Amino acid sequence: MAKMIVPAGIHTRTTALGGRPAVLVETAGAPKAGTVLYFHGGSYVVGSPETAMSLTGNLVTRTGFRAFSLDYRLAPEHPFPAAIEDGLSAYRALLDSGEAPSAIAFAGDSAGGGLAVTTCLAARDAGLPMPAAIVAFSPGLDMTRTGESMHTKAGIDPFLTREGLEHTGAMYLAGQDPHQPMLSPATLADLSGFPPMLLQAGTNEMVLDDSTRMATRAREAGVDVILDITADVPHVFQAFANALDEADEALDRAALFLSQRIRARGPAHTAEG
Amino acid sequence: MAKMIVPAGIHTRTTALGGRPAVLVETAGAPKAGTVLYFHGGSYVVGSPETAMSLTGNLVTRTGFRAFSLDYRLAPEHPFPAAIEDGLSAYRALLDSGEAPSAIAFAGDSAGGGLAVTTCLAARDAGLPMPAAIVAFSPGLDMTRTGESMHTKAGIDPFLTREGLEHTGAMYLAGQDPHQPMLSPATLADLSGFPPMLLQAGTNEMVLDDSTRMATRAREAGVDVILDITADVPHVFQAFANALDEADEALDRAALFLSQRIRARGPAHTAEG
Repeated sequence: MAKMIVPAGIHTRTTALGGRPAVLVETAGAPKAGTVLYFHGGSYVVGSPETAMSLTGNLVTRTGFRAFSLDYRLAPEHPFPAAIEDGLSAYRALLDSGEAPSAIAFAGDSAGGGLAVTTCLAARDAGLPMPAAIVAFSPGLDMTRTGESMHTKAGIDPFLTREGLEHTGAMYLAGQDPHQPMLSPATLADLSGFPPMLLQAGTNEMVLDDSTRMATRAREAGVDVILDITADVPHVFQAFANALDEADEALDRAALFLSQRIRARGPAHTAEG
Repeated sequence: MAKMIVPAGIHTRTTALGGRPAVLVETAGAPKAGTVLYFHGGSYVVGSPETAMSLTGNLVTRTGFRAFSLDYRLAPEHPFPAAIEDGLSAYRALLDSGEAPSAIAFAGDSAGGGLAVTTCLAARDAGLPMPAAIVAFSPGLDMTRTGESMHTKAGIDPFLTREGLEHTGAMYLAGQDPHQPMLSPATLADLSGFPPMLLQAGTNEMVLDDSTRMATRAREAGVDVILDITADVPHVFQAFANALDEADEALDRAALFLSQRIRARGPAHTAEG
Protein backbone atom coordinates (compact mmCIF):
# COMPACT_ATOMS: atom_id res chain seq x y z
CA MET A 1 0.00 0.00 0.00
CA ALA A 2 3.06 2.26 0.10
CA LYS A 3 2.30 3.70 -3.31
CA MET A 4 -1.41 4.17 -2.71
CA ILE A 5 -2.47 7.62 -3.81
CA VAL A 6 -5.74 9.04 -2.54
CA PRO A 7 -7.22 11.09 -5.35
CA ALA A 8 -7.66 14.80 -5.11
CA GLY A 9 -11.20 15.98 -5.41
CA ILE A 10 -12.92 14.09 -2.62
CA HIS A 11 -14.36 15.23 0.67
CA THR A 12 -14.46 12.79 3.57
CA ARG A 13 -16.34 12.96 6.81
CA THR A 14 -16.62 10.45 9.66
CA THR A 15 -20.16 9.46 10.36
CA ALA A 16 -22.07 6.37 11.48
CA LEU A 17 -24.08 3.82 9.59
CA GLY A 18 -26.13 1.09 11.23
CA GLY A 19 -24.33 1.48 14.51
CA ARG A 20 -20.79 1.38 13.18
CA PRO A 21 -18.42 4.20 12.27
CA ALA A 22 -18.19 4.90 8.56
CA VAL A 23 -16.46 7.42 6.35
CA LEU A 24 -18.70 9.28 3.96
CA VAL A 25 -16.77 10.03 0.78
CA GLU A 26 -18.14 12.58 -1.66
CA THR A 27 -16.88 14.12 -4.84
CA ALA A 28 -15.78 17.73 -4.83
CA GLY A 29 -17.13 17.87 -8.36
CA ALA A 30 -20.69 17.47 -9.59
CA PRO A 31 -22.34 14.73 -7.52
CA LYS A 32 -24.62 12.12 -9.00
CA ALA A 33 -27.43 10.52 -7.03
CA GLY A 34 -26.39 7.08 -5.86
CA THR A 35 -24.46 5.39 -3.07
CA VAL A 36 -21.63 2.90 -2.93
CA LEU A 37 -21.38 0.90 0.28
CA TYR A 38 -17.67 0.14 0.44
CA PHE A 39 -15.92 -2.63 2.41
CA HIS A 40 -12.16 -2.29 2.89
CA GLY A 41 -9.76 -5.21 2.68
CA GLY A 42 -7.44 -6.64 5.31
CA SER A 43 -8.34 -10.30 5.79
CA TYR A 44 -11.11 -9.37 8.29
CA VAL A 45 -8.31 -8.61 10.77
CA VAL A 46 -6.72 -5.32 9.77
CA GLY A 47 -7.50 -2.31 7.59
CA SER A 48 -9.96 0.53 7.82
CA PRO A 49 -11.82 2.95 5.58
CA GLU A 50 -8.61 4.98 5.47
CA THR A 51 -6.43 2.15 4.17
CA ALA A 52 -8.84 1.67 1.26
CA MET A 53 -9.39 5.36 0.60
CA SER A 54 -7.56 5.30 -2.73
CA LEU A 55 -10.00 2.69 -4.04
CA THR A 56 -13.10 4.27 -2.54
CA GLY A 57 -12.06 7.75 -3.56
CA ASN A 58 -11.29 6.71 -7.10
CA LEU A 59 -14.74 5.16 -7.47
CA VAL A 60 -16.30 8.36 -6.12
CA THR A 61 -14.32 10.74 -8.34
CA ARG A 62 -14.91 8.59 -11.41
CA THR A 63 -18.67 8.17 -10.90
CA GLY A 64 -19.86 11.17 -8.88
CA PHE A 65 -21.65 8.81 -6.50
CA ARG A 66 -21.11 9.12 -2.77
CA ALA A 67 -19.65 6.22 -0.83
CA PHE A 68 -19.93 5.07 2.73
CA SER A 69 -16.84 3.10 3.68
CA LEU A 70 -17.80 0.97 6.63
CA ASP A 71 -15.57 0.47 9.65
CA TYR A 72 -16.91 -3.01 10.32
CA ARG A 73 -15.81 -5.08 13.31
CA LEU A 74 -12.61 -7.11 12.91
CA ALA A 75 -11.25 -10.42 14.13
CA PRO A 76 -9.91 -11.81 16.34
CA GLU A 77 -12.04 -9.75 18.76
CA HIS A 78 -15.06 -10.09 16.49
CA PRO A 79 -14.91 -13.20 14.31
CA PHE A 80 -17.39 -14.40 11.69
CA PRO A 81 -20.17 -13.38 11.26
CA ALA A 82 -19.64 -10.01 12.95
CA ALA A 83 -18.41 -8.27 9.80
CA ILE A 84 -21.37 -9.51 7.78
CA GLU A 85 -23.80 -8.43 10.51
CA ASP A 86 -22.28 -4.96 10.35
CA GLY A 87 -22.57 -4.92 6.57
CA LEU A 88 -26.22 -5.91 6.77
CA SER A 89 -26.94 -3.27 9.42
CA ALA A 90 -25.27 -0.65 7.26
CA TYR A 91 -27.35 -1.63 4.23
CA ARG A 92 -30.53 -1.64 6.28
CA ALA A 93 -29.65 1.83 7.59
CA LEU A 94 -29.20 3.11 4.05
CA LEU A 95 -32.57 1.69 3.04
CA ASP A 96 -34.19 3.10 6.17
CA SER A 97 -32.76 6.51 5.29
CA GLY A 98 -34.83 6.42 2.13
CA GLU A 99 -32.17 5.41 -0.37
CA ALA A 100 -33.66 3.11 -3.00
CA PRO A 101 -31.98 -0.27 -3.40
CA SER A 102 -31.63 0.50 -7.11
CA ALA A 103 -29.43 3.44 -6.13
CA ILE A 104 -27.06 1.40 -3.95
CA ALA A 105 -24.10 -0.74 -4.99
CA PHE A 106 -21.83 -2.82 -2.77
CA ALA A 107 -18.09 -2.70 -3.45
CA GLY A 108 -14.98 -3.90 -1.74
CA ASP A 109 -11.45 -5.21 -2.09
CA SER A 110 -9.94 -8.51 -0.96
CA ALA A 111 -11.79 -9.62 2.19
CA GLY A 112 -13.99 -6.57 1.62
CA GLY A 113 -14.90 -7.93 -1.81
CA GLY A 114 -15.96 -11.09 -0.06
CA LEU A 115 -17.97 -9.03 2.38
CA ALA A 116 -19.73 -7.25 -0.48
CA VAL A 117 -20.90 -10.67 -1.65
CA THR A 118 -21.77 -12.15 1.75
CA THR A 119 -23.57 -9.00 2.87
CA CYS A 120 -25.67 -9.36 -0.25
CA LEU A 121 -26.37 -12.99 0.64
CA ALA A 122 -27.37 -11.90 4.14
CA ALA A 123 -29.61 -9.17 2.74
CA ARG A 124 -31.37 -11.65 0.48
CA ASP A 125 -31.78 -14.12 3.32
CA ALA A 126 -33.24 -11.31 5.44
CA GLY A 127 -35.81 -10.57 2.76
CA LEU A 128 -34.35 -7.20 1.85
CA PRO A 129 -34.37 -5.98 -1.73
CA MET A 130 -31.16 -6.52 -3.65
CA PRO A 131 -28.78 -3.64 -4.28
CA ALA A 132 -28.14 -2.59 -7.87
CA ALA A 133 -24.72 -4.17 -8.26
CA ILE A 134 -21.63 -5.64 -6.67
CA VAL A 135 -18.06 -4.65 -7.55
CA ALA A 136 -15.31 -6.80 -6.08
CA PHE A 137 -11.59 -6.18 -6.48
CA SER A 138 -9.59 -9.39 -5.95
CA PRO A 139 -12.26 -10.74 -3.63
CA GLY A 140 -11.63 -13.50 -1.14
CA LEU A 141 -14.58 -15.84 -1.62
CA ASP A 142 -13.43 -19.21 -0.34
CA MET A 143 -12.25 -19.80 3.21
CA THR A 144 -11.78 -23.49 2.36
CA ARG A 145 -8.92 -22.31 0.08
CA THR A 146 -9.53 -24.95 -2.56
CA GLY A 147 -8.95 -22.85 -5.65
CA GLU A 148 -6.30 -24.15 -8.04
CA SER A 149 -4.64 -20.75 -7.94
CA MET A 150 -3.85 -21.35 -4.27
CA HIS A 151 -1.22 -23.75 -5.63
CA THR A 152 -0.46 -22.48 -9.10
CA LYS A 153 0.08 -18.87 -8.01
CA ALA A 154 1.93 -19.63 -4.79
CA GLY A 155 5.33 -18.04 -5.07
CA ILE A 156 4.07 -15.83 -7.91
CA ASP A 157 1.74 -13.79 -5.72
CA PRO A 158 3.89 -11.04 -4.23
CA PHE A 159 1.56 -10.25 -1.36
CA LEU A 160 -0.23 -13.36 -0.13
CA THR A 161 0.93 -16.71 1.17
CA ARG A 162 -1.04 -19.74 2.25
CA GLU A 163 0.44 -19.38 5.72
CA GLY A 164 -0.64 -15.77 5.96
CA LEU A 165 -4.13 -16.51 4.68
CA GLU A 166 -4.52 -19.40 7.09
CA HIS A 167 -3.22 -17.32 9.99
CA THR A 168 -5.73 -14.52 9.49
CA GLY A 169 -8.40 -16.93 8.33
CA ALA A 170 -8.21 -18.80 11.61
CA MET A 171 -8.84 -15.55 13.48
CA TYR A 172 -11.95 -14.85 11.43
CA LEU A 173 -13.20 -18.43 11.61
CA ALA A 174 -12.57 -18.80 15.33
CA GLY A 175 -13.06 -22.52 15.01
CA GLN A 176 -16.10 -22.38 12.78
CA ASP A 177 -16.42 -24.63 9.75
CA PRO A 178 -15.39 -22.79 6.56
CA HIS A 179 -17.70 -25.03 4.52
CA GLN A 180 -20.65 -22.66 4.62
CA PRO A 181 -22.00 -20.28 1.98
CA MET A 182 -21.25 -17.21 4.08
CA LEU A 183 -17.59 -18.20 4.33
CA SER A 184 -17.02 -19.82 0.96
CA PRO A 185 -19.57 -18.33 -1.42
CA ALA A 186 -17.48 -19.11 -4.50
CA THR A 187 -18.17 -22.79 -4.04
CA LEU A 188 -21.22 -23.00 -1.80
CA ALA A 189 -23.53 -20.02 -2.16
CA ASP A 190 -26.82 -20.03 -4.01
CA LEU A 191 -26.58 -16.79 -5.99
CA SER A 192 -30.08 -16.78 -7.44
CA GLY A 193 -31.59 -13.34 -7.50
CA PHE A 194 -28.22 -11.65 -7.17
CA PRO A 195 -27.61 -8.30 -8.81
CA PRO A 196 -25.07 -7.84 -11.63
CA MET A 197 -21.50 -8.43 -10.48
CA LEU A 198 -18.14 -7.16 -11.67
CA LEU A 199 -15.23 -9.27 -10.47
CA GLN A 200 -11.73 -7.94 -11.16
CA ALA A 201 -8.58 -9.90 -10.40
CA GLY A 202 -4.99 -10.29 -11.54
CA THR A 203 -3.35 -13.44 -12.82
CA ASN A 204 -0.57 -13.12 -10.24
CA GLU A 205 -2.67 -13.81 -7.20
CA MET A 206 -3.54 -16.82 -5.15
CA VAL A 207 -7.21 -15.87 -4.84
CA LEU A 208 -7.66 -15.60 -8.63
CA ASP A 209 -9.84 -18.69 -8.72
CA ASP A 210 -12.11 -17.29 -6.03
CA SER A 211 -13.22 -14.91 -8.78
CA THR A 212 -13.24 -17.39 -11.65
CA ARG A 213 -15.35 -19.88 -9.70
CA MET A 214 -17.69 -17.16 -8.48
CA ALA A 215 -18.20 -16.00 -12.06
CA THR A 216 -19.10 -19.50 -13.18
CA ARG A 217 -21.47 -19.91 -10.26
CA ALA A 218 -23.10 -16.54 -10.94
CA ARG A 219 -23.52 -17.30 -14.64
CA GLU A 220 -25.11 -20.63 -13.83
CA ALA A 221 -27.51 -18.86 -11.47
CA GLY A 222 -28.58 -16.50 -14.24
CA VAL A 223 -26.75 -13.49 -12.85
CA ASP A 224 -25.12 -10.84 -15.07
CA VAL A 225 -21.41 -11.19 -14.36
CA ILE A 226 -18.27 -9.64 -15.76
CA LEU A 227 -15.06 -11.48 -14.98
CA ASP A 228 -12.36 -8.93 -15.71
CA ILE A 229 -8.87 -10.44 -15.50
CA THR A 230 -5.67 -8.46 -15.94
CA ALA A 231 -2.50 -10.40 -16.63
CA ASP A 232 0.67 -10.06 -14.57
CA VAL A 233 -0.72 -7.82 -11.88
CA PRO A 234 -1.00 -8.59 -8.18
CA HIS A 235 -3.72 -8.67 -5.57
CA VAL A 236 -5.82 -5.46 -5.51
CA PHE A 237 -3.70 -3.83 -8.19
CA GLN A 238 -6.39 -1.12 -8.49
CA ALA A 239 -4.91 0.42 -5.34
CA PHE A 240 -2.02 1.62 -7.51
CA ALA A 241 -4.16 4.13 -9.39
CA ASN A 242 -2.16 7.06 -10.71
CA ALA A 243 0.97 4.89 -10.70
CA LEU A 244 -0.06 1.88 -12.79
CA ASP A 245 -2.06 2.26 -16.02
CA GLU A 246 -3.77 -1.09 -15.49
CA ALA A 247 -5.14 0.19 -12.20
CA ASP A 248 -6.65 3.34 -13.67
CA GLU A 249 -8.10 1.43 -16.60
CA ALA A 250 -9.67 -1.17 -14.33
CA LEU A 251 -11.16 1.57 -12.15
CA ASP A 252 -12.57 3.26 -15.24
CA ARG A 253 -14.26 0.02 -16.20
CA ALA A 254 -15.60 -0.38 -12.67
CA ALA A 255 -16.92 3.18 -12.77
CA LEU A 256 -18.72 2.58 -16.06
CA PHE A 257 -20.23 -0.59 -14.64
CA LEU A 258 -21.46 1.23 -11.53
CA SER A 259 -22.84 4.07 -13.64
CA GLN A 260 -24.74 1.60 -15.80
CA ARG A 261 -26.22 -0.22 -12.83
CA ILE A 262 -27.05 2.46 -10.28
CA ARG A 263 -30.44 3.95 -11.09
CA ALA A 264 -31.12 6.77 -8.72
CA ARG A 265 -34.13 9.02 -8.78
CA GLY A 266 -34.11 12.58 -7.61
CA PRO A 267 -31.19 14.87 -6.96
CA ALA A 268 -27.87 13.84 -5.51
CA HIS A 269 -27.39 14.04 -1.79
CA THR A 270 -25.75 17.23 -0.65
CA ALA A 271 -22.44 17.38 1.14
CA GLU A 272 -24.45 16.96 4.34
CA GLY A 273 -25.11 13.36 3.32
CA MET B 1 -32.11 -8.71 -37.32
CA ALA B 2 -35.49 -7.14 -38.04
CA LYS B 3 -35.08 -4.62 -35.26
CA MET B 4 -31.47 -3.75 -36.03
CA ILE B 5 -31.05 0.01 -36.10
CA VAL B 6 -28.04 1.50 -37.83
CA PRO B 7 -27.00 4.52 -35.81
CA ALA B 8 -27.20 8.01 -37.21
CA GLY B 9 -23.92 9.80 -37.37
CA ILE B 10 -21.83 7.47 -39.49
CA HIS B 11 -20.51 7.77 -43.01
CA THR B 12 -19.93 4.62 -45.03
CA ARG B 13 -18.02 4.12 -48.23
CA THR B 14 -17.25 0.95 -50.16
CA THR B 15 -13.55 0.40 -50.63
CA ALA B 16 -11.12 -2.51 -50.82
CA LEU B 17 -8.75 -3.98 -48.27
CA GLY B 18 -6.24 -6.70 -49.04
CA GLY B 19 -7.98 -7.63 -52.25
CA ARG B 20 -11.48 -7.90 -50.85
CA PRO B 21 -14.33 -5.40 -50.77
CA ALA B 22 -14.76 -3.65 -47.47
CA VAL B 23 -16.95 -0.91 -46.09
CA LEU B 24 -15.13 1.95 -44.44
CA VAL B 25 -17.24 3.30 -41.58
CA GLU B 26 -16.40 6.66 -40.08
CA THR B 27 -17.99 8.86 -37.51
CA ALA B 28 -19.69 12.04 -38.59
CA GLY B 29 -18.46 13.48 -35.31
CA ALA B 30 -14.94 14.09 -34.13
CA PRO B 31 -12.78 11.19 -35.30
CA LYS B 32 -10.12 9.58 -33.15
CA ALA B 33 -7.03 7.95 -34.61
CA GLY B 34 -7.44 4.20 -34.63
CA THR B 35 -8.98 1.45 -36.71
CA VAL B 36 -11.34 -1.42 -36.01
CA LEU B 37 -11.14 -4.31 -38.46
CA TYR B 38 -14.66 -5.71 -38.26
CA PHE B 39 -15.86 -9.20 -39.24
CA HIS B 40 -19.61 -9.67 -39.70
CA GLY B 41 -21.46 -12.76 -38.55
CA GLY B 42 -23.44 -15.30 -40.54
CA SER B 43 -21.93 -18.73 -39.89
CA TYR B 44 -19.31 -18.16 -42.64
CA VAL B 45 -22.12 -18.68 -45.13
CA VAL B 46 -24.27 -15.54 -45.16
CA GLY B 47 -24.08 -11.94 -44.03
CA SER B 48 -22.14 -8.92 -45.19
CA PRO B 49 -20.77 -5.65 -43.85
CA GLU B 50 -24.28 -4.27 -44.28
CA THR B 51 -25.98 -6.88 -42.12
CA ALA B 52 -23.61 -6.03 -39.27
CA MET B 53 -23.72 -2.28 -39.78
CA SER B 54 -25.59 -1.63 -36.55
CA LEU B 55 -22.79 -3.26 -34.57
CA THR B 56 -19.96 -1.72 -36.57
CA GLY B 57 -21.60 1.68 -36.64
CA ASN B 58 -22.27 1.66 -32.92
CA LEU B 59 -18.63 0.92 -32.18
CA VAL B 60 -17.60 3.76 -34.50
CA THR B 61 -20.01 6.33 -33.07
CA ARG B 62 -19.14 5.36 -29.50
CA THR B 63 -15.37 5.46 -29.97
CA GLY B 64 -14.65 7.84 -32.83
CA PHE B 65 -12.41 5.20 -34.43
CA ARG B 66 -12.90 4.28 -38.07
CA ALA B 67 -13.80 0.70 -38.97
CA PHE B 68 -13.23 -1.41 -42.03
CA SER B 69 -15.91 -4.06 -42.22
CA LEU B 70 -14.53 -6.80 -44.41
CA ASP B 71 -16.56 -8.58 -47.07
CA TYR B 72 -14.63 -11.82 -46.68
CA ARG B 73 -15.29 -14.87 -48.86
CA LEU B 74 -18.08 -17.18 -47.78
CA ALA B 75 -18.81 -20.89 -47.88
CA PRO B 76 -19.84 -23.09 -49.51
CA GLU B 77 -18.05 -21.52 -52.50
CA HIS B 78 -15.06 -20.65 -50.34
CA PRO B 79 -14.74 -22.92 -47.30
CA PHE B 80 -12.16 -22.82 -44.51
CA PRO B 81 -9.61 -21.28 -44.48
CA ALA B 82 -10.66 -18.70 -47.12
CA ALA B 83 -12.26 -16.31 -44.63
CA ILE B 84 -9.16 -16.37 -42.41
CA GLU B 85 -6.91 -15.78 -45.40
CA ASP B 86 -9.01 -12.73 -46.27
CA GLY B 87 -8.81 -11.49 -42.69
CA LEU B 88 -5.07 -11.85 -42.67
CA SER B 89 -4.72 -10.07 -46.02
CA ALA B 90 -6.85 -7.22 -44.74
CA TYR B 91 -4.74 -6.87 -41.60
CA ARG B 92 -1.56 -6.96 -43.66
CA ALA B 93 -2.98 -4.26 -45.92
CA LEU B 94 -3.73 -2.06 -42.92
CA LEU B 95 -0.20 -2.50 -41.62
CA ASP B 96 1.24 -1.86 -45.10
CA SER B 97 -0.77 1.35 -45.26
CA GLY B 98 1.20 2.58 -42.27
CA GLU B 99 -1.32 1.95 -39.52
CA ALA B 100 0.48 0.86 -36.34
CA PRO B 101 -0.62 -2.46 -34.87
CA SER B 102 -1.18 -0.66 -31.57
CA ALA B 103 -3.83 1.41 -33.35
CA ILE B 104 -5.75 -1.57 -34.73
CA ALA B 105 -8.32 -3.78 -33.02
CA PHE B 106 -10.15 -6.78 -34.42
CA ALA B 107 -13.86 -7.10 -33.72
CA GLY B 108 -16.68 -9.29 -34.88
CA ASP B 109 -19.93 -11.00 -34.05
CA SER B 110 -20.84 -14.71 -34.07
CA ALA B 111 -18.73 -16.38 -36.77
CA GLY B 112 -17.10 -12.99 -37.23
CA GLY B 113 -16.06 -13.04 -33.59
CA GLY B 114 -14.43 -16.37 -34.31
CA LEU B 115 -12.75 -14.83 -37.32
CA ALA B 116 -11.39 -12.00 -35.19
CA VAL B 117 -9.68 -14.64 -33.06
CA THR B 118 -8.49 -16.91 -35.86
CA THR B 119 -7.23 -14.00 -37.95
CA CYS B 120 -5.18 -13.01 -34.92
CA LEU B 121 -3.84 -16.57 -34.68
CA ALA B 122 -2.96 -16.45 -38.38
CA ALA B 123 -1.25 -13.09 -37.94
CA ARG B 124 0.84 -14.40 -35.07
CA ASP B 125 1.76 -17.52 -37.03
CA ALA B 126 2.77 -15.28 -39.95
CA GLY B 127 5.10 -13.33 -37.70
CA LEU B 128 3.06 -10.15 -37.83
CA PRO B 129 2.77 -7.91 -34.79
CA MET B 130 -0.34 -8.37 -32.70
CA PRO B 131 -3.20 -5.89 -32.93
CA ALA B 132 -4.10 -3.91 -29.82
CA ALA B 133 -7.21 -5.86 -28.87
CA ILE B 134 -9.96 -8.26 -29.84
CA VAL B 135 -13.67 -7.67 -29.20
CA ALA B 136 -15.96 -10.61 -29.87
CA PHE B 137 -19.74 -10.54 -29.58
CA SER B 138 -21.14 -14.06 -29.04
CA PRO B 139 -18.23 -15.59 -30.92
CA GLY B 140 -18.32 -19.04 -32.44
CA LEU B 141 -15.02 -20.57 -31.34
CA ASP B 142 -15.54 -24.31 -31.48
CA MET B 143 -16.50 -26.16 -34.64
CA THR B 144 -16.36 -29.43 -32.69
CA ARG B 145 -19.43 -28.11 -30.80
CA THR B 146 -18.46 -29.69 -27.50
CA GLY B 147 -19.47 -26.86 -25.17
CA GLU B 148 -21.92 -27.81 -22.44
CA SER B 149 -24.14 -24.93 -23.52
CA MET B 150 -24.73 -26.76 -26.81
CA HIS B 151 -26.93 -29.04 -24.71
CA THR B 152 -27.99 -26.91 -21.77
CA LYS B 153 -29.12 -23.97 -23.90
CA ALA B 154 -30.72 -25.99 -26.68
CA GLY B 155 -34.37 -25.00 -26.79
CA ILE B 156 -33.57 -21.83 -24.82
CA ASP B 157 -31.56 -20.20 -27.58
CA PRO B 158 -34.12 -18.44 -29.76
CA PHE B 159 -31.87 -18.20 -32.81
CA LEU B 160 -29.55 -21.17 -33.09
CA THR B 161 -30.09 -24.90 -33.27
CA ARG B 162 -27.60 -27.73 -33.43
CA GLU B 163 -29.03 -28.70 -36.79
CA GLY B 164 -28.56 -25.21 -38.15
CA LEU B 165 -25.04 -24.93 -36.82
CA GLU B 166 -24.11 -28.30 -38.25
CA HIS B 167 -25.67 -27.46 -41.59
CA THR B 168 -23.68 -24.26 -42.06
CA GLY B 169 -20.64 -25.70 -40.29
CA ALA B 170 -20.46 -28.48 -42.84
CA MET B 171 -20.34 -25.91 -45.61
CA TYR B 172 -17.46 -24.09 -43.98
CA LEU B 173 -15.60 -27.28 -43.08
CA ALA B 174 -16.06 -28.87 -46.49
CA GLY B 175 -14.96 -32.18 -45.06
CA GLN B 176 -12.02 -30.84 -43.07
CA ASP B 177 -11.41 -31.97 -39.50
CA PRO B 178 -12.82 -29.45 -37.00
CA HIS B 179 -10.21 -30.54 -34.45
CA GLN B 180 -7.70 -27.83 -35.34
CA PRO B 181 -6.87 -24.56 -33.61
CA MET B 182 -8.08 -22.44 -36.52
CA LEU B 183 -11.50 -24.09 -36.36
CA SER B 184 -11.87 -24.67 -32.63
CA PRO B 185 -9.66 -22.12 -30.89
CA ALA B 186 -11.68 -22.24 -27.66
CA THR B 187 -10.36 -25.72 -26.99
CA LEU B 188 -7.24 -26.08 -29.14
CA ALA B 189 -5.50 -22.77 -29.78
CA ASP B 190 -2.30 -21.65 -28.11
CA LEU B 191 -3.14 -18.07 -27.20
CA SER B 192 0.25 -17.01 -25.93
CA GLY B 193 1.15 -13.51 -26.98
CA PHE B 194 -2.46 -12.61 -27.70
CA PRO B 195 -3.67 -9.06 -27.15
CA PRO B 196 -6.32 -8.22 -24.55
CA MET B 197 -9.71 -9.73 -25.35
CA LEU B 198 -13.27 -8.76 -24.53
CA LEU B 199 -15.75 -11.60 -24.93
CA GLN B 200 -19.43 -10.74 -24.58
CA ALA B 201 -22.18 -13.33 -24.63
CA GLY B 202 -25.67 -13.98 -23.33
CA THR B 203 -26.78 -16.81 -21.10
CA ASN B 204 -29.51 -17.79 -23.55
CA GLU B 205 -27.25 -18.99 -26.31
CA MET B 206 -25.82 -22.30 -27.37
CA VAL B 207 -22.36 -20.87 -28.04
CA LEU B 208 -22.05 -19.38 -24.53
CA ASP B 209 -19.39 -21.89 -23.57
CA ASP B 210 -17.31 -21.00 -26.60
CA SER B 211 -16.71 -17.74 -24.77
CA THR B 212 -16.34 -19.18 -21.28
CA ARG B 213 -13.78 -21.75 -22.41
CA MET B 214 -11.91 -19.19 -24.48
CA ALA B 215 -11.70 -16.90 -21.45
CA THR B 216 -10.24 -19.68 -19.32
CA ARG B 217 -7.75 -20.54 -22.04
CA ALA B 218 -6.75 -16.91 -22.47
CA ARG B 219 -6.31 -16.42 -18.73
CA GLU B 220 -4.14 -19.51 -18.52
CA ALA B 221 -2.02 -18.16 -21.37
CA GLY B 222 -1.45 -14.91 -19.49
CA VAL B 223 -3.74 -12.84 -21.69
CA ASP B 224 -5.85 -9.98 -20.35
CA VAL B 225 -9.42 -11.14 -20.81
CA ILE B 226 -12.81 -9.81 -19.87
CA LEU B 227 -15.66 -12.32 -19.96
CA ASP B 228 -18.77 -10.18 -20.00
CA ILE B 229 -21.94 -12.24 -19.61
CA THR B 230 -25.43 -10.80 -19.71
CA ALA B 231 -28.25 -12.96 -18.39
CA ASP B 232 -31.37 -13.81 -20.35
CA VAL B 233 -30.32 -12.30 -23.65
CA PRO B 234 -29.82 -14.11 -26.93
CA HIS B 235 -27.04 -14.51 -29.47
CA VAL B 236 -25.54 -11.17 -30.56
CA PHE B 237 -27.97 -9.17 -28.46
CA GLN B 238 -25.80 -6.09 -29.08
CA ALA B 239 -27.44 -5.87 -32.50
CA PHE B 240 -30.54 -4.57 -30.72
CA ALA B 241 -28.93 -1.30 -29.76
CA ASN B 242 -31.43 1.52 -29.36
CA ALA B 243 -34.13 -1.04 -28.63
CA LEU B 244 -32.66 -3.05 -25.72
CA ASP B 245 -30.84 -1.37 -22.82
CA GLU B 246 -28.56 -4.35 -22.33
CA ALA B 247 -27.34 -3.93 -25.90
CA ASP B 248 -26.44 -0.28 -25.51
CA GLU B 249 -24.76 -0.92 -22.19
CA ALA B 250 -22.71 -3.79 -23.59
CA LEU B 251 -21.66 -1.63 -26.54
CA ASP B 252 -20.63 1.15 -24.16
CA ARG B 253 -18.43 -1.32 -22.30
CA ALA B 254 -16.96 -2.54 -25.58
CA ALA B 255 -16.27 1.05 -26.60
CA LEU B 256 -14.49 1.81 -23.34
CA PHE B 257 -12.41 -1.33 -23.76
CA LEU B 258 -11.43 -0.36 -27.31
CA SER B 259 -10.62 3.17 -26.22
CA GLN B 260 -8.39 1.84 -23.46
CA ARG B 261 -6.52 -0.51 -25.76
CA ILE B 262 -6.10 1.36 -29.05
CA ARG B 263 -3.05 3.58 -28.79
CA ALA B 264 -2.80 5.62 -31.94
CA ARG B 265 -0.22 8.25 -32.66
CA GLY B 266 -0.83 11.22 -34.84
CA PRO B 267 -4.09 12.68 -36.09
CA ALA B 268 -7.12 10.70 -37.08
CA HIS B 269 -7.53 9.67 -40.67
CA THR B 270 -9.67 12.02 -42.69
CA ALA B 271 -12.91 11.03 -44.30
CA GLU B 272 -10.80 10.01 -47.29
CA GLY B 273 -9.56 7.08 -45.22
